Amino acid sequence: MITGQNLIAGEWSGKTEGGFTAFNAQTHRAIDIEFSDATELEVNTAITRANEAFTSYGQLSAEKRAAFLRAIGREILALGDELVETACGETGLPAMRIQGERGRTIGQLGLFADLLEAGEYQGVVEQANNDRQPLPKPDTRLGYLPLGVVGVFAASNFPLAFSTAGGDTASALAAGCPVVMKAHAAHPATAELVARAILKAIESCDLDPGVFSLIQGKNYAISTQIVTHPLVKAVGFTGSERVGMILQQQIHQRAEPIPFYGELGSINPQFIMPNKVNENGAEIAQGLVASLMMGQGQFCTSPGVWVVIGDGKSENYQTFITSASEALTEQRAGVMLTPAMCAGYNAAVEERKTLSGVTLLATGQAGNEQECSASLFATDLATFAKSPLLQEEVFGFSALVVRCADVAEMMQFVSLLKGNLTASIHGLDSDLAVSKELSLTLAHKVGRLIYNQMPTGVEVCASMNHGGPFPASTNIRTTSVGSEAIIRFRRPICYQNMPAELLPSLLRD
Amino acid sequence: MITGQNLIAGEWSGKTEGGFTAFNAQTHRAIDIEFSDATELEVNTAITRANEAFTSYGQLSAEKRAAFLRAIGREILALGDELVETACGETGLPAMRIQGERGRTIGQLGLFADLLEAGEYQGVVEQANNDRQPLPKPDTRLGYLPLGVVGVFAASNFPLAFSTAGGDTASALAAGCPVVMKAHAAHPATAELVARAILKAIESCDLDPGVFSLIQGKNYAISTQIVTHPLVKAVGFTGSERVGMILQQQIHQRAEPIPFYGELGSINPQFIMPNKVNENGAEIAQGLVASLMMGQGQFCTSPGVWVVIGDGKSENYQTFITSASEALTEQRAGVMLTPAMCAGYNAAVEERKTLSGVTLLATGQAGNEQECSASLFATDLATFAKSPLLQEEVFGFSALVVRCADVAEMMQFVSLLKGNLTASIHGLDSDLAVSKELSLTLAHKVGRLIYNQMPTGVEVCASMNHGGPFPASTNIRTTSVGSEAIIRFRRPICYQNMPAELLPSLLRD
Repeated sequence: MITGQNLIAGEWSGKTEGGFTAFNAQTHRAIDIEFSDATELEVNTAITRANEAFTSYGQLSAEKRAAFLRAIGREILALGDELVETACGETGLPAMRIQGERGRTIGQLGLFADLLEAGEYQGVVEQANNDRQPLPKPDTRLGYLPLGVVGVFAASNFPLAFSTAGGDTASALAAGCPVVMKAHAAHPATAELVARAILKAIESCDLDPGVFSLIQGKNYAISTQIVTHPLVKAVGFTGSERVGMILQQQIHQRAEPIPFYGELGSINPQFIMPNKVNENGAEIAQGLVASLMMGQGQFCTSPGVWVVIGDGKSENYQTFITSASEALTEQRAGVMLTPAMCAGYNAAVEERKTLSGVTLLATGQAGNEQECSASLFATDLATFAKSPLLQEEVFGFSALVVRCADVAEMMQFVSLLKGNLTASIHGLDSDLAVSKELSLTLAHKVGRLIYNQMPTGVEVCASMNHGGPFPASTNIRTTSVGSEAIIRFRRPICYQNMPAELLPSLLRD
Repeated sequence: MITGQNLIAGEWSGKTEGGFTAFNAQTHRAIDIEFSDATELEVNTAITRANEAFTSYGQLSAEKRAAFLRAIGREILALGDELVETACGETGLPAMRIQGERGRTIGQLGLFADLLEAGEYQGVVEQANNDRQPLPKPDTRLGYLPLGVVGVFAASNFPLAFSTAGGDTASALAAGCPVVMKAHAAHPATAELVARAILKAIESCDLDPGVFSLIQGKNYAISTQIVTHPLVKAVGFTGSERVGMILQQQIHQRAEPIPFYGELGSINPQFIMPNKVNENGAEIAQGLVASLMMGQGQFCTSPGVWVVIGDGKSENYQTFITSASEALTEQRAGVMLTPAMCAGYNAAVEERKTLSGVTLLATGQAGNEQECSASLFATDLATFAKSPLLQEEVFGFSALVVRCADVAEMMQFVSLLKGNLTASIHGLDSDLAVSKELSLTLAHKVGRLIYNQMPTGVEVCASMNHGGPFPASTNIRTTSVGSEAIIRFRRPICYQNMPAELLPSLLRD
């Protein structure tokens, strides 16, 4: 039974009448539950209580934080089929995908728990040396402190792994920071279920309930209040460049600067090397279409631009284009996450059709009124160079082939490229010299550089980087996926000449 | 022979007539050399050439970068007495201090060289696991890329260690980033000498001269041009909160966000615990005065506020106050770094004298017209709480005793405190319970927490943190001193499924 309320420091709170409704992504019909638009008082209470909880939670041992993360994972699993069905209804994503995402979410909580239990990130100890000349060396020990209350904004496209108990929440809680979570209005019931699981974990671990609050709402003032609140010390966000930059500007107005970790847009360029096109044109074309179709292309890492060397008339280039077009034409239509995203996708595709120098190569199968169809466009470098619109992400399963006459044009493409989460180079051994030249330049435009694999699918591990130059991320030095995500929510502190009693236990002899 | 020119990618450049002059800090007389105000074209050339040099320098092996850093150190030492005399003249700091700072600067370059040679920070390798269920694990390797051209602003108060070849420059060069250095107008001749040393090192290491440029000037437009230039990818700054925030606002206007590492103001509160006041009041008072006097208090870590528990009439509190006042009264007057800083210091002291609830306890010896005198004020918590001015740094040897009635008032002081580079707790074993309570809260307000030592003197080592909550630093997650300073100028990148030929050598099997 979904209440539609906010979870404010352990209490379900808020008037739901006159609030907002979520939509069933399959039917585009409102789901018959009203959700509360959190009030200014509720948001303030959540943040204030989170800050109070920080006193105890920020000092909780790594072991106890690990146990809390694992308990959240168990409680999410215990939600059972209701969670899967609710998320499928709200997002239109298939059950298998939601089950996989649930596994990833629980795995992610476990990754940070492992990290904490392994005693990593404990710091650097350099003992005193009183004999050093000309001056003695003091005892100095570098440790890490959690930043304080973290505001997290859920993503539309990952109702579990980048939402209520997703990567930002998991890494903030792992670091020792209470979380005030702004649910995404596209899946508020899913958020409520997961918040319920977190609350159970809070209770079983005997923690201050201020450590987690869930804010529901469609009112933009809520977001402004969260990011500008003096007690909020960092913000995690996954979403569009447009909304991300609004939040960034608001954060810039704060008296005290705080880090804003925004994971924004990406077109994830795919570079198909000359010999690869010649020898495996059909195969790579089909692989790219399959990657594009995942989740109707609603992935941050969806391959949106395919850069191919060809003179436009050569047989190999034509084979690639024909195979890609044929594969795409066969793809079934599908629902998008929300009616608004469906409309936005269709508008972006219609706009592309009107652009001079851009050709529509293929359209996927038509579906019902609520569904969108995949699309594939082509252009040449000159057109790409003069059309800033073509560097903008089309959120959904639309890709653009950019034909480059030669390697020099491909390098020119790279120089035009804005920051991206990922890029892939698809090549044969005989392409290695060109691939090497390309990779050295391309590395500076992306957060993850991939060879002969598709960009979709982000491994959650210690060596992952999910970020990159703006607009892929607002903070180039951090990742939102993988172990290193924890460093976003803690900061260094040097303890000098401290007696053991005043040192954190990890830094004692 | 000082030319007064800019060093633009290996060429001495610029019209010096009509430029600016530096001042001899002892005499307040202009030094008889004119220095160029760099033109827009020169600044643009420096940045463009730095970006070109980045192609090769950004890929230079760690060993070669280490050799370059060591060569800079050798060339600085080879400047001999001319460097010491020039810096003493421009800053008024004594020769022994400048010699010590030179040692620290060279040591700092060596620290980063050691780090590079030790192969640290190479990344994380996680090989593929094709047997993993349900999906194979790809090969992922986390490496680090230098950000690109770094703009550095020299500090007034450390003509060597935080200036031309100081910590920001050393860590940026270590990370693989070319540097465009804006010299401080208080010591342009010192800057030119050090730039000459860097140029010699560039030549002996056979590097692209674009890797380092020195920009002279007093014109604010130069700073704006540097921080807003699209090819500049990070900025390091040490200076006042006022100037730092002007640069930060300009950086906020950029299309592409870049990290701004500003080390700004700090009052470095000193907490003297009840039993410490009772048993060692005179001794700690004298120690604080000695720390305050270092470099005429023109240290970022100068102890500007002393928090003491006492009822104002108790004998022990009076002993502390009397000892501090007596010690301060004996201190000789001294010159400040520039005539403007001398005027600024005197104005700030005069302003404090007019504040209701603030008492002038003592003034140091009077000196000549060019010299300033130390000063010691006292107030109570209530006055401190209602006077935002008392949390602002007085740049120079002025300290403020804040009397707290009890531990609760001391904790209230901490809650009012803005961010600071350091704080010290001075206590006896019998104070440990109170010190522990204090330290847990105080840790969240400082970058370095010290026990029974003075804050002046920043150890350059792997466990140092020189930063902290705003306004101590604009980026709470980084340090400007010590090994970890290098992370400011590089960023993570994940290489997925890359053949060895396309991997940086450090990440190969």
